[in-house]
Amino acid sequence: MSPDHNSGYPEESLDPQDWDELRSLGRQMIDDMLSYLQTVRERPVWSPMPEDVRAAFQEPLPRSPVKPSDVYRDFRKNVLPYPTGNIHPRFWGWVIGTGTPFGMLAEMLAAGMNPNCGGFDQASTLVERQVIDWAKEMLGYPSQASGLLVNGGSMANLVGLAVARQSKADIEVRRQGLQGVSRRMTLYSSVETHSSVAKAVEILGLGSQSLRLVKTREDFSVDINALAATILADRAEGLKPFCVIGNAGTINTGAIDDLDGLADLCQKEGLWLHVDGAFGALAALSPRLRELVKGMRRADSLAFDLHKWMYMPYEVGCTLVRSEPVHRGTFSLIPAYLARTKRGTSAGPTPFNEYGIELSRSFKALKVWMSLKEHGVDKYGRLIEQNVDQAQYVAKRVETSRELELLAPVPLNVVCFRFFSPELDEPALDRLNEELLLRLQERGAAVLNSTKLHGKYCLRAAITNHRTRREDLDLLIQEVIALGKGILDEGFIGNPR
Amino acid sequence: MSPDHNSGYPEESLDPQDWDELRSLGRQMIDDMLSYLQTVRERPVWSPMPEDVRAAFQEPLPRSPVKPSDVYRDFRKNVLPYPTGNIHPRFWGWVIGTGTPFGMLAEMLAAGMNPNCGGFDQASTLVERQVIDWAKEMLGYPSQASGLLVNGGSMANLVGLAVARQSKADIEVRRQGLQGVSRRMTLYSSVETHSSVAKAVEILGLGSQSLRLVKTREDFSVDINALAATILADRAEGLKPFCVIGNAGTINTGAIDDLDGLADLCQKEGLWLHVDGAFGALAALSPRLRELVKGMRRADSLAFDLHKWMYMPYEVGCTLVRSEPVHRGTFSLIPAYLARTKRGTSAGPTPFNEYGIELSRSFKALKVWMSLKEHGVDKYGRLIEQNVDQAQYVAKRVETSRELELLAPVPLNVVCFRFFSPELDEPALDRLNEELLLRLQERGAAVLNSTKLHGKYCLRAAITNHRTRREDLDLLIQEVIALGKGILDEGFIGNPR
Repeated sequence: MSPDHNSGYPEESLDPQDWDELRSLGRQMIDDMLSYLQTVRERPVWSPMPEDVRAAFQEPLPRSPVKPSDVYRDFRKNVLPYPTGNIHPRFWGWVIGTGTPFGMLAEMLAAGMNPNCGGFDQASTLVERQVIDWAKEMLGYPSQASGLLVNGGSMANLVGLAVARQSKADIEVRRQGLQGVSRRMTLYSSVETHSSVAKAVEILGLGSQSLRLVKTREDFSVDINALAATILADRAEGLKPFCVIGNAGTINTGAIDDLDGLADLCQKEGLWLHVDGAFGALAALSPRLRELVKGMRRADSLAFDLHKWMYMPYEVGCTLVRSEPVHRGTFSLIPAYLARTKRGTSAGPTPFNEYGIELSRSFKALKVWMSLKEHGVDKYGRLIEQNVDQAQYVAKRVETSRELELLAPVPLNVVCFRFFSPELDEPALDRLNEELLLRLQERGAAVLNSTKLHGKYCLRAAITNHRTRREDLDLLIQEVIALGKGILDEGFIGNPR
Repeated sequence: MSPDHNSGYPEESLDPQDWDELRSLGRQMIDDMLSYLQTVRERPVWSPMPEDVRAAFQEPLPRSPVKPSDVYRDFRKNVLPYPTGNIHPRFWGWVIGTGTPFGMLAEMLAAGMNPNCGGFDQASTLVERQVIDWAKEMLGYPSQASGLLVNGGSMANLVGLAVARQSKADIEVRRQGLQGVSRRMTLYSSVETHSSVAKAVEILGLGSQSLRLVKTREDFSVDINALAATILADRAEGLKPFCVIGNAGTINTGAIDDLDGLADLCQKEGLWLHVDGAFGALAALSPRLRELVKGMRRADSLAFDLHKWMYMPYEVGCTLVRSEPVHRGTFSLIPAYLARTKRGTSAGPTPFNEYGIELSRSFKALKVWMSLKEHGVDKYGRLIEQNVDQAQYVAKRVETSRELELLAPVPLNVVCFRFFSPELDEPALDRLNEELLLRLQERGAAVLNSTKLHGKYCLRAAITNHRTRREDLDLLIQEVIALGKGILDEGFIGNPR
């Protein structure tokens, strides 16, 4: 490469030498991927990776080019066959969305346009603003609220709690920070609250000891009396309560806090109400289920995901904030090189980067925009009801089976249960179910995950899957019982862990 | 939708009714998008959106389905023609990457597989680990370091500074927070540091007043003597200096701090060295430029982007951290429902969610993995050199033109200059260049942005564009001079702003 700037030099780019060759490879990819999605039901949900495939990922940094079709061959051979499993109709582990074929295509379009969605006067800005307006409409949230698409629930909670901190601090928290505050700022939520809330509290410098996790009622919703008492006691000790986090769908059991009760309390006590509705908020899309979460419209900030119970491809979450000025006041930071103009590329409404942490942002709004048009929101409501009905169905099958035990109420789409045998004590039941879970995954029959409730190891099915059918759930019940019996028959009882 | 769980009910999914129809739509999209990229040079860089197009984004939430091909038609009509402009060969505004056709296809594959890359025993985990190993190799960073792909430079800096806070706090910062610390923790950097560092400092609860921005030398690199003196003075006042942020390529001018000098100082003073190498770190890919940034290998944490100067589609940035245990200790948080197992889906190495804020994560590693294989890292090195040579070329054209003035040194790929006329005073020069910038954008000829240096309004070209050719830069110079003269001829001098 000649450093002589006066002479010509060979100019290179990353565009293909042969566009037609890439076009035909692209078409091949489309065909392959759509077939892959069409036939997902025929494959195991999850498979362990063979050692020789693992070894393929040890190659050093590539220095020289490889033909695109050969790179794609590597992908087909070593990557594509070993997914998480969440696109499969019998994946119900954690709370992981499914994605859709059209969503995949939308992601391709977004990556081709490759806009920077931090701001600017461009179509992606208007798409995202429209998607946020639609989100408010879907969830019954006030139309004057501000909003931001983010990468997921963790970030959505972090953004909401940052705004809460900004709004309620006695000091200029952006300038002064929390260093040297005289009264510790404290937050309140139930023990069932998602770990991302604790992570956000830590990131924000509030300290996890400032997050008071109070007990729940029988149904795993927060005990508001206990919460109110904790606030009172903390005030008496000279602390500064500033925020309550309500759950619209807890991670363990799908429990929904009494959000109206929390809103009343926050109003009375002058506290910020943040609702973590990662998946549960979407219950608002169903006329039948809407009532369960209606209190969330009173939240000061609301976090939810579209890549979970709206089945969009990763990543897309959202934070809505009732007060636009407070939201912008938390994050807006405009150095000289980001000066806005009245005309040209930098014109347009307030840039999204003034509402969150990220300055450069991808076009994650496009898949939401295209998918909502493709299906219409009513269909999403029906699918959410379908998943809730499916969870109820599993719960009923569990309750009517001698070999299975339901371990928590099923208010939404999460079922906690276990294989049960009266011959086993609690530690043995834990061990048996732990082994059962792994074998279920290893057989590729279904993926559940586990949790602990009242100290008991549970199998946990969270149904945020548009591909699941009744027959899949019948197979789950059948497999769990067969595996449980098999492990019992092996003389598992009393084996050391 | 029947809530009767015993009877059959009509099961729906979001999969297409007709897979072949979607397959042919997908092929059409591939053809269209590749043609769109192939012909990008023929279109204006940026165009304002007509009012009727803007109005199309006011439609209420769609309730009923629309045919996928009609949704795509909407996209083609109202979205695709109005991009940011950054995929165009004459876009040099801010520091925004270009994307590639193959990167677009990789994003499609990633969205189709749609894995959750928070952890799990699956191919995406190994792809990301390999990409991080490659990143360390590319940048000459220690091989035992840990790393995480993130959404961009803002998050990469936030992660790095969170680890710094964790490592250097006298207290248990995760549990106690910064509330009530007795000695204010302070950070040091130059006034040219990117705003995302200040944003991270605010988010972390440190307070922007804790970020001491010290002056730069003539070349806009940090004045290390001034920085050391500020640290000394702060210590004398009872504060607790804990971190220095070095710049490998400042946003305004591409200046590179004396990173070895900063590393020496941090070693002596017991401070954490974080390097913000958003784009500049990638200079390490060029044998000719490597020396400029070699001190960054001594950083405790290093942030950089792959969607900027590695031309990947949005989003993908990276943080590398020298000490894996400190990195993990900052973020690891494992509730019951995330318990890892020795076998099954939850097996595998430490999940990525223990190294950062996000729990669910998309497969952003795939485009990096596929692109590095496609081109080989040596080609990226050549393209980075090409961009630097192009910046030098612009600088030379500016310096040899009577009508233009260079306003800063050009150590890398950023050129700050302005149209100049001896007849104009400084305020008039500012106004003229401001108008010039907007007209340049509105004509669709080129996109630059502006900044201020020593109070002067500058036109700023940041070249992180693999499509740019020498002829594009010639056109830029020609347009800037013609526009400047035109504005002068209009009698612009002395016009009120």
